This record gives sequence, C-alpha cells and structure tokens, in this order.
Amino acid sequence: MEYYSGHISKLIEELTGLPGIGAKSAQRLAFHLLNMPVERVEKLAETVVSARKNVRYCAQCLTLTDDELCPVCKNGKRDHRQIMVVENPRDLAAYEKTGKYEGVYHVLHGAISPMLGIGPNDIRLKELMQRLQADVDEVIIATNSSLEGETTAMYISKLIKPTGIRVTRIASGVPVGGDLEYIDEVTLLRALEGRTDL
Amino acid sequence: MEYYSGHISKLIEELTGLPGIGAKSAQRLAFHLLNMPVERVEKLAETVVSARKNVRYCAQCLTLTDDELCPVCKNGKRDHRQIMVVENPRDLAAYEKTGKYEGVYHVLHGAISPMLGIGPNDIRLKELMQRLQADVDEVIIATNSSLEGETTAMYISKLIKPTGIRVTRIASGVPVGGDLEYIDEVTLLRALEGRTDL
Repeated sequence: MEYYSGHISKLIEELTGLPGIGAKSAQRLAFHLLNMPVERVEKLAETVVSARKNVRYCAQCLTLTDDELCPVCKNGKRDHRQIMVVENPRDLAAYEKTGKYEGVYHVLHGAISPMLGIGPNDIRLKELMQRLQADVDEVIIATNSSLEGETTAMYISKLIKPTGIRVTRIASGVPVGGDLEYIDEVTLLRALEGRTDL
Repeated sequence: MEYYSGHISKLIEELTGLPGIGAKSAQRLAFHLLNMPVERVEKLAETVVSARKNVRYCAQCLTLTDDELCPVCKNGKRDHRQIMVVENPRDLAAYEKTGKYEGVYHVLHGAISPMLGIGPNDIRLKELMQRLQADVDEVIIATNSSLEGETTAMYISKLIKPTGIRVTRIASGVPVGGDLEYIDEVTLLRALEGRTDL
C-alpha cells in the first residue's frame, strides 16, 4: 500500500473487504473512481449515504424498504394469510421476480448457525410468531437449502406446528434445465425422495 | 429492479457497472452497505469523494498522487536518467513492490488499441517525448505483454530510436514458478526466442 499516495491508500483500504472485493479489485475499483468525473463520484457517494439513511425495515415483513410498509405488504391484492419466510431481502426479490407468488413475506435477516454462533434469538423469529396471532393460513418456509437454512426451517416448523397453522417447505430437487450428471448426490437423493406421481 | 424500493434500486443501479461488479454483486454490496453503521457509510463516501478531489497527476511521471510530484519523482536518490514506461499506476506499484528498480517512471494511462479506437494521441506519449529533452540514458518499456501493450511498445521504440536514447523492453517468458505444461504456446515461443547463455 505504501506504493500509493495517502489519499489513494486510504481509498483502497476502505474498499478492501467490502463483499467480493479483495486487494486486487479494490485497487482496480479505486483507480476507476479516481478517473470518474467529480460529479459522478459525488452522486455515487450521495446515493450510498442517502440510501443508508432512508432505508428501513418494513413494519410488517421486515424487508428493507423506503416507507413504513414495503410494496408487497401495502398491496391489498396480495394474500396476507399466506406468509413466505425467507432469509434476506434478496431472496424475497428472487421470488418476486417469478411474478407468480401472491402471498406476503417475512424476512428473517439471517439463518440459525451454531457454527457462527447465530441462535434463534439473533434472527427475526419473534416478529414472525407475533404475526401468526393474526389470521394466517399457511407459512411457507423458503430458507436456503443449506445446512443453516435447513436447521432454521426445522426449528421454525417445530415452533409453529403447535399453533395448528399449516407449515410447508419449498421443494428441494434438480434445478430446471439441470443436467443430472453435474448435480451433487445429496440433491439427487432429495429429488428422489420428493418424487411426485405423474 | 422493481422488486426493491426506490432508494435500494438507485443504489444497486449506481453500483452495477463499476469494474468487476455485475448485477448480482451489486445487490450483495448494496445490502452490505445498508447494514453498515451510518457513520461507516458516511466515512466511506467521504473517503471516495475526497480522494477523487485531491488526487492529481504527478507533474513529471503522470502517475496519480497527492502532491505536485509523486514520492518516486521527488526522491533525489532515484536515477532520473532511467525512465520505465508503464500503462497505469497499478503497474508502477507492481514494479515498486519489487523494491529493486531505482529509476523513475512514466505513466501512459492506457495503451494504443486500434480495436478500441485508442491512438497514440489518446495516451500520454507527448509528455514522454518532452521528458526526453532532458538528460535520459534509457527508456525501459514495461507495457503489458498483450496485443495493445506490444503495439504500444513498438510504436514508442520507433518514436525514440531517432533520438539515440537507448530503448529496452522487459523480457517475456515463463513466469517464475510457472509449470511449462500450463503455459500457452506464444509464451513458450517467446521464452525460447529470449533464451540466454548459461
């Protein structure tokens, strides 16, 4: 880093460690920023700060949004009795992109991970249980198909079962267009277990 | 993008397209920034803007730096009669890291690329030629070993030859520790051509 002047080193330092940005890409990014027009850089900086200051948790589903309620929770046409539980706002967006899901969401902001010391109280589970006091028909657990996601799904399902509300889990299996040859064994077994009649 | 609120979409949009940041990593980066403490985000934004505003071209070698002259050009112990020509400040830093080069640099800020429409007048060649009016013993061309880098090297060497100043090119060959098996044919041929007596 001592090969760069003070301002440049400080910039590279600040950029290094952002997700997906290592030492090399931080350098490339820094020089790109230094070559941008001042106004563009100022606009970028302002957008970041203003987003951080203005974005908050939706009062209902806890996704990140600009207003008290997110567009989905605000929408009267959505089925508010069907709640899909996801780990984070990006997963919510992934399901919204399908354009086919008509229920609402609940964002946990994480998953239970004994390895990382993340317990049930570290994710937004309490808020989910509170929402179940209202009329809810079904909770669809759409946490990731990872060890943490599965642990979280199991934990939530045990928590909700006593309430009598239907709890479901999205299917695991071979991705559409997936070539069996390249799919791992665990997924193949899951696909077999989850087979349906034709 | 319509799956995110206004502030979040704007943030993702601003981040997408920065070097090495595609749509997916822009989303990951955006949510990382939104989860950072406000003060950290403000500091990051300020560092970027202040670097952009305070960094300028070294009056001699044209690298990016904080002052009128960069540390290398300011250093009286460096050999100012030996100039290494590089494409950009990152390449300068790469050679500085070796700690063995004692001359100074000239940063072209690009390379000639007919494909991209970048001609000799689009890089800082005129400034290099001006520097050669002073006492210079050698110009070492250290542009990349790419098509553009080689074209630029050839062009510069033709330009300088008539002045009588010695022009050299850094060696192409097998990288140290490189396994011949995995090295491309062009490099292997270059290494053969550039062989030296033992």
